[in-house]
Amino acid sequence: MGSIFLSEFTGTALLLLLGLGVGANVSLARTKGREGGWLLVNFGWGLAVFAGVYAAAPTGAHLNPAVTAGLWIAGQDFAPGIPATPLHFATYVLAQLLGAMFGALLTYLAYKKHFDAEPDSATKLGVFATGPAIRTPLWNTITEALATFVLVYVVLLFGNTPSGLGPLAVAMLVVGIGASLGGATGYAINPARDLGPRVLHALLPMKGKGPSDWAYAWIPVTGPLLGGIVAGLLYHLTPLVPAAS
Amino acid sequence: MGSIFLSEFTGTALLLLLGLGVGANVSLARTKGREGGWLLVNFGWGLAVFAGVYAAAPTGAHLNPAVTAGLWIAGQDFAPGIPATPLHFATYVLAQLLGAMFGALLTYLAYKKHFDAEPDSATKLGVFATGPAIRTPLWNTITEALATFVLVYVVLLFGNTPSGLGPLAVAMLVVGIGASLGGATGYAINPARDLGPRVLHALLPMKGKGPSDWAYAWIPVTGPLLGGIVAGLLYHLTPLVPAAS
Amino acid sequence: MGSIFLSEFTGTALLLLLGLGVGANVSLARTKGREGGWLLVNFGWGLAVFAGVYAAAPTGAHLNPAVTAGLWIAGQDFAPGIPATPLHFATYVLAQLLGAMFGALLTYLAYKKHFDAEPDSATKLGVFATGPAIRTPLWNTITEALATFVLVYVVLLFGNTPSGLGPLAVAMLVVGIGASLGGATGYAINPARDLGPRVLHALLPMKGKGPSDWAYAWIPVTGPLLGGIVAGLLYHLTPLVPAAS
Amino acid sequence: MGSIFLSEFTGTALLLLLGLGVGANVSLARTKGREGGWLLVNFGWGLAVFAGVYAAAPTGAHLNPAVTAGLWIAGQDFAPGIPATPLHFATYVLAQLLGAMFGALLTYLAYKKHFDAEPDSATKLGVFATGPAIRTPLWNTITEALATFVLVYVVLLFGNTPSGLGPLAVAMLVVGIGASLGGATGYAINPARDLGPRVLHALLPMKGKGPSDWAYAWIPVTGPLLGGIVAGLLYHLTPLVPAAS
Repeated sequence: MGSIFLSEFTGTALLLLLGLGVGANVSLARTKGREGGWLLVNFGWGLAVFAGVYAAAPTGAHLNPAVTAGLWIAGQDFAPGIPATPLHFATYVLAQLLGAMFGALLTYLAYKKHFDAEPDSATKLGVFATGPAIRTPLWNTITEALATFVLVYVVLLFGNTPSGLGPLAVAMLVVGIGASLGGATGYAINPARDLGPRVLHALLPMKGKGPSDWAYAWIPVTGPLLGGIVAGLLYHLTPLVPAAS
Repeated sequence: MGSIFLSEFTGTALLLLLGLGVGANVSLARTKGREGGWLLVNFGWGLAVFAGVYAAAPTGAHLNPAVTAGLWIAGQDFAPGIPATPLHFATYVLAQLLGAMFGALLTYLAYKKHFDAEPDSATKLGVFATGPAIRTPLWNTITEALATFVLVYVVLLFGNTPSGLGPLAVAMLVVGIGASLGGATGYAINPARDLGPRVLHALLPMKGKGPSDWAYAWIPVTGPLLGGIVAGLLYHLTPLVPAAS
Repeated sequence: MGSIFLSEFTGTALLLLLGLGVGANVSLARTKGREGGWLLVNFGWGLAVFAGVYAAAPTGAHLNPAVTAGLWIAGQDFAPGIPATPLHFATYVLAQLLGAMFGALLTYLAYKKHFDAEPDSATKLGVFATGPAIRTPLWNTITEALATFVLVYVVLLFGNTPSGLGPLAVAMLVVGIGASLGGATGYAINPARDLGPRVLHALLPMKGKGPSDWAYAWIPVTGPLLGGIVAGLLYHLTPLVPAAS
Repeated sequence: MGSIFLSEFTGTALLLLLGLGVGANVSLARTKGREGGWLLVNFGWGLAVFAGVYAAAPTGAHLNPAVTAGLWIAGQDFAPGIPATPLHFATYVLAQLLGAMFGALLTYLAYKKHFDAEPDSATKLGVFATGPAIRTPLWNTITEALATFVLVYVVLLFGNTPSGLGPLAVAMLVVGIGASLGGATGYAINPARDLGPRVLHALLPMKGKGPSDWAYAWIPVTGPLLGGIVAGLLYHLTPLVPAAS
């Protein structure tokens, strides 16, 4: 159980260190990547997944409660030798949440002086947690659910089309989801990615800190979980003919 | 027949959800990727293909009537175990068209509030259907035919150069075609990609909707079909020496 | 001999159609990719190589006289079953030059109306042929030689580090060379890529055409050839220990 | 010993030629990639690693004293047949430093006229050596250590998740680290990458040259070494369960 925890914790920490890092780089005051554009954000997050997957490979590198939930619903093992059980589920999710918090702390340290230099408290929060371009709970939830559905459904199908891409497959998938479906809510597509850093933002003493926007916090949790669960259900209905090579 | 339909339907729906998604993200009001640049559009569409191919792998993941037509002309099976017959062709194309419409509907839902916020009706149509930079039926058809020729001809050649790229090969090919040959017509390079969403645009009740530009609609159908057919013909003439490794 | 010619002709034509295409897209009047940035240009050219390599795989997909020359100097076969002989060399180079001219013609057709709409004759020439940012024959030659050296030397080393990347390896190498070493001369790194389209530019009747800048034409021929030859020589000196996996 | 030296020297020279090249391209006067954006810089450096790895494959392609140190601490061989010994360590590091200087010299030659045309001496230094966005020794060191930790830790884990990516894996990792963690210090993440070119900058006669900023020089040496060493230590603690495929 400890090695499951350590694997998902480490992988999710790396994911958040790099993922929040690109957010810090494009938005905080005086960084070298400031205003670097949406594709830079997409590659930053995609390759954050890339790094995280290597670190959490022994546990299947979920790094995301929506993936863990989707696999469970789909009737899959979490990883070879790790069956889907309530205790394993809880271990994965706890490791992901705490790993996300720890990764967010490392990002804060990596950009400490830029957080200090940034005058806008909303920009600081924006490095930690997602926020919608147009605030509307129903539609924000739908967007997050759709984007996460794509993530979990395609990840479930990876095994059906063998390639030599390894962790690059999910990395490129995340680049694509961000480019295409990230423009309305900033694509949490992962409850741990949003909730963990938001909790850290609330706890961390920080110069010029504003509120943590708890009113929005439930959407990047429920939307992604909903999307992951629907992906798991649909995967049951998918006829798994061996893929054309 | 049903599982062929489902495979191409699902794959094309994913292709359109992500592909139109990047168009929504770069063009609609108040999105986070607004004015994100042409390369963002290219990666969005290329990785939309990437996701769609995983979902439609059992049927060879055509996702595009021009590919299906090209394979038929080239004398290939549509996929292992699926010979090229008129009935199979009709099944593929119908699934692609309906899948494209369904994917477009999902994109609309993902960006619902941004469609509402967008004042320009031509911009809204531009998320669904392609339009030329300079309107001129002959040359627009030639551009679409050339770009689709490259797509279908190289896809036909993939089997001749084995790699471990899997679905990333066609994804990167589409990124390249968009970057290079997409600048005149917005690169439909797929009759279903343009016609399906255009029909949906005409049917869908939408705030501030304008006309669906039916005068242009036949070009992104005939141009890509022409390109795919020429690719199939030329493939017959290509001497298939085994590739250097 | 005919099938060697056809393979290199087709691959180089595809390379130029897509490569010049991205140049047209970023520079001509009223295109959708106008001012799309240097990375767009780099990916356009890199993925142009990607497509071209699939089409010319049976002949090793040189697509470039500097590669053919470098392989010859390095004492390698041009491809499995195609030894380096003067007649084969001449066949490769002639196919590359004529393929480059044909590809350039296709690019012109794909962007015909945008060439017509473009008022600046130097911009039109810039789609066909390279030109230096700061004109100075010696240093322009050095830049082209250095960039081509990297291309040919690393291509020669590909066989020493097996991967499943297939044609993506050289595509990414070309993206990198363009990003890094393309900023001074616009990176011909291939005599056929520059000379073929420049000849076509001179021959083609075109609205508002200016001169073809023959004064510069010898530099993107001699620089790349020099770089390819030095790469072939250095490859002889490289101790080929089997690579670490 | 000589072939170890030659391998790491050549690979690091290629890394620096391309890596510094993208810096020259985005920052010097009158280049074609000027103001090309942070993602261009990231791909330039990532693909510089890609090229360098092919050239140094026989020695494991460290190209970086922090990688060599991390492998040593982790108890790994430097490459198959090259055990970690003090003499081998010294050979690797000397080759990396001298290779970095030679690569920097080649970049200078590739962009000679643009160095001459650039009026700002700090911009010239910025092509050779990194500098922080906000100067603060402690936090700059922490940023460099964190970024290099990610690099070395994930490189150590590559063997645990087999793929067909070959040298593209480390290239994409470096793209990601630059996108995410490069915005505060310009990501040396490699003592040789910063110190070698800084020494060359000090030695090279150059028109309008300013000081070499030796006050900062120790940070991109100690930060990366610290990160590499911590990565090696943590790797010892990582439970290496075989990865899920």
